[in-house]
Amino acid sequence: MLLNSPDTITAIASGKGGAIGVIRVSGQQAIEICDRIFRPASGKPLKEAKGYTLHYGEIVAHEELTEGTDSCPSEHVIDDVIVSLFRAPKSYTGEDMVEISCHGSRYIEQEIIRQLIRQGARPAEAGEFTIRAFLAGKMDLSQAEAVADMIASVDRATHALALNQMRGGYSSDFTELRQQLIDLASLLELELDFGEEDVEFADRAQLGKLLDQALDKTRTLLQSFGLGNAIKEGVGVAIIGSPNAGKSTLLNALVKDDRAMVSDIAGTTRDVIEESINLEGITFRFIDTAGIRKTEDRLEQMGIERTISAAGKAHVILLLVEAGTPETMLAAIQQNTACISLQADQHLCLIINKSDLANNLPENTATLQTLLAANTNIVPEAILTLSAKTGRNLEQLLNWLSTLFDTKDIYTGVTVVSNSRHYEALYRAEEALCRTQTGLQNGLAADLVVQDLREAIFHIGLVTNVVSNNDILNNIFSKFCIGK
Amino acid sequence: MLLNSPDTITAIASGKGGAIGVIRVSGQQAIEICDRIFRPASGKPLKEAKGYTLHYGEIVAHEELTEGTDSCPSEHVIDDVIVSLFRAPKSYTGEDMVEISCHGSRYIEQEIIRQLIRQGARPAEAGEFTIRAFLAGKMDLSQAEAVADMIASVDRATHALALNQMRGGYSSDFTELRQQLIDLASLLELELDFGEEDVEFADRAQLGKLLDQALDKTRTLLQSFGLGNAIKEGVGVAIIGSPNAGKSTLLNALVKDDRAMVSDIAGTTRDVIEESINLEGITFRFIDTAGIRKTEDRLEQMGIERTISAAGKAHVILLLVEAGTPETMLAAIQQNTACISLQADQHLCLIINKSDLANNLPENTATLQTLLAANTNIVPEAILTLSAKTGRNLEQLLNWLSTLFDTKDIYTGVTVVSNSRHYEALYRAEEALCRTQTGLQNGLAADLVVQDLREAIFHIGLVTNVVSNNDILNNIFSKFCIGK
Repeated sequence: MLLNSPDTITAIASGKGGAIGVIRVSGQQAIEICDRIFRPASGKPLKEAKGYTLHYGEIVAHEELTEGTDSCPSEHVIDDVIVSLFRAPKSYTGEDMVEISCHGSRYIEQEIIRQLIRQGARPAEAGEFTIRAFLAGKMDLSQAEAVADMIASVDRATHALALNQMRGGYSSDFTELRQQLIDLASLLELELDFGEEDVEFADRAQLGKLLDQALDKTRTLLQSFGLGNAIKEGVGVAIIGSPNAGKSTLLNALVKDDRAMVSDIAGTTRDVIEESINLEGITFRFIDTAGIRKTEDRLEQMGIERTISAAGKAHVILLLVEAGTPETMLAAIQQNTACISLQADQHLCLIINKSDLANNLPENTATLQTLLAANTNIVPEAILTLSAKTGRNLEQLLNWLSTLFDTKDIYTGVTVVSNSRHYEALYRAEEALCRTQTGLQNGLAADLVVQDLREAIFHIGLVTNVVSNNDILNNIFSKFCIGK
Repeated sequence: MLLNSPDTITAIASGKGGAIGVIRVSGQQAIEICDRIFRPASGKPLKEAKGYTLHYGEIVAHEELTEGTDSCPSEHVIDDVIVSLFRAPKSYTGEDMVEISCHGSRYIEQEIIRQLIRQGARPAEAGEFTIRAFLAGKMDLSQAEAVADMIASVDRATHALALNQMRGGYSSDFTELRQQLIDLASLLELELDFGEEDVEFADRAQLGKLLDQALDKTRTLLQSFGLGNAIKEGVGVAIIGSPNAGKSTLLNALVKDDRAMVSDIAGTTRDVIEESINLEGITFRFIDTAGIRKTEDRLEQMGIERTISAAGKAHVILLLVEAGTPETMLAAIQQNTACISLQADQHLCLIINKSDLANNLPENTATLQTLLAANTNIVPEAILTLSAKTGRNLEQLLNWLSTLFDTKDIYTGVTVVSNSRHYEALYRAEEALCRTQTGLQNGLAADLVVQDLREAIFHIGLVTNVVSNNDILNNIFSKFCIGK
């Protein structure tokens, strides 16, 4: 990636298989290069036209079509096109830009690109149009990252997340937080200026209060990543249980039940993640696992190892037992959790299945809870009784899953962090702010406290702006698609 | 398909997976409908703007986001977009048109479509934008059909064919031919007007000459379909021969040899048609067949039946025999052609393989030719000696294949018919013209001769214009992609 490159870049910006193809050209020579291959119907070249205008005409190639054939013309038409003209700085990249709208054939698009390259443009790298927009100050870094998220958005929730981040509400939260920290640092530095007089100039109690506010804000943003990441990456749900507890039946029931609910989400990639459903904007990926039991069968052992691994990575664990006496259910639970170490951030739901075949279920469930508390350290967030086979109470499970993530926030413009780079920045900022807090509380010298605070400011600043670090920029923009 | 519908139509015009998505809107209300969901950055609505201008702004949805949630706004932004405005009649369809350029996410594109439909547009059917262009007189029917061919073009030859047809050189050939026939009919009808006087008004010799010219022209166009269809649909080449004659080796050698030659044809669908190569714009599809011999093996018999079927459908037959004595070669040829009835329009090439292992090949080949002429009615267009294994003389075979179709014409603007509907029209016109010719020669009464002539005129007219027959129009445009 060439930052601040004077080159004129070009790329196909539209997808494959459409009626229309769009080719983008951006850079100092964009208009000049296009004028060389564009024959406007009006006869007036683009260089004489205003920005934000459309032009009908032909794209023409200047070359021998067949080598050595005298009868071939040296100039031939490639396509009838509509050209959109944008003049710097009023364009996406802030540079002169031309967009050529042609017939949607990959052959035609590539021929036009070839002519543009012959005339001096070079193929754009992934994200290079957006990196130019960023460098021209058209958007900050988190907004630029959101452009890729916009293009990748597949449903209402991912779209809302990306849109909010792209349109600046997100950035201003970070900018405000950073400003708060800068103000705080200024107060501390004021003390440093008068350091020789050995006075505590700033009111440390007052400073502590401001710092607490900033730390709260940082932690709120950090915590929002749980929701943001769930929306962006989906939520892994491992279904664990003894063989024949009804895991596959539950999975099928969940997916079938969902068919109606996900009708608005076209093109969900069912072949990669076999069984997933979308509940209020969050994709839950169900992982049907091998039943856990002691076995000598090598293949079955491998299945169980995969189960344990899947359970370790899952955000949510559905622990399935067959309805029975409190003692048999406890035994099943203990057998299943023996090899699985539940993690603090995992959501556990105990599901008592086959409720349609059970007697005394309410009493038995109550007794089971008592037994669990007395004999294990397993504390399910919910205990549900249902029948995967008949579908009875299945909606309770769906409701419980929905309540794990409150997606309402993302539709009301609350900042939700979904970018792991931003999460890392916040995480490091929080660490630095904690050290700042300890320093303040322990009456540490202002110059040491300011050092930690400056580190926090640096990390928060990374979210919206990294002009000095090309590696980070390259890393971010290389994930973009070509043409954006 | 509603012809002459006053509806405003909309469709996604760009392909999947691009950086940019394009949504088209066309119709009397196009601007009004878009104004309801477009919030221009300038504050100036589209209805006040001139055609051929671009507008930056937001697409806004007017609806409750989450039902029953008070906190949700009744208006929310879907995307930042660039809008292209075209005013009737200066647009693709001849109607008012708006194109919305948004972020290339199918979700966003569908949301924008949904808003347009809420405001009164309806989803466009396949080809409906182009049918409107045709009905508005922006293009004739053969040009409209060429739009679909443009979008489907995958290489230089298919592109050249489609472009020539779209840009009108093609149409004028048909229009001229039709005019010639109309002039001829007028002369004959002049005779009819004076029919009572029983005079042959027009000089029948002169008329015959004009008719011959028109018939020649018709036949030239008809014959061009061989090339046009080969370019558009590819050419089937059956490789026939005894088991172990080297058919598969030849196939592999041809395809391998081609790798370098087809580097400019990206995305050729190799998985559907397993073995195909492109020579100067024509795709040759090689069909490797089972060796033909007498066998009791049921599976092998089925393979041989398929061979016979493939040979029947192929445009080109490569008959492969192992180099040997004239007699053994003749026997192999007779065995292979015994069950295959060669057709008049099939090109036959006799290939004497394993030339690297043979002695006296030139003499033996000459003797074989004599034997063939004396004992069979097989007349190969070419006899080539080569070694599929070493690749010796392989380029002779490629050259021979290339010479079967002279593609030079399509790059110099000569009219080449590739549309089977046009072929059928020409075929029927030719039949009618032959009857006209016979009638003239036999001194048939003018009114009968004119009847045949009028039929030819009708069929030629179908190529460029069918306004009175909705069935034909529906049939043509239903093959289009949505958004064009």
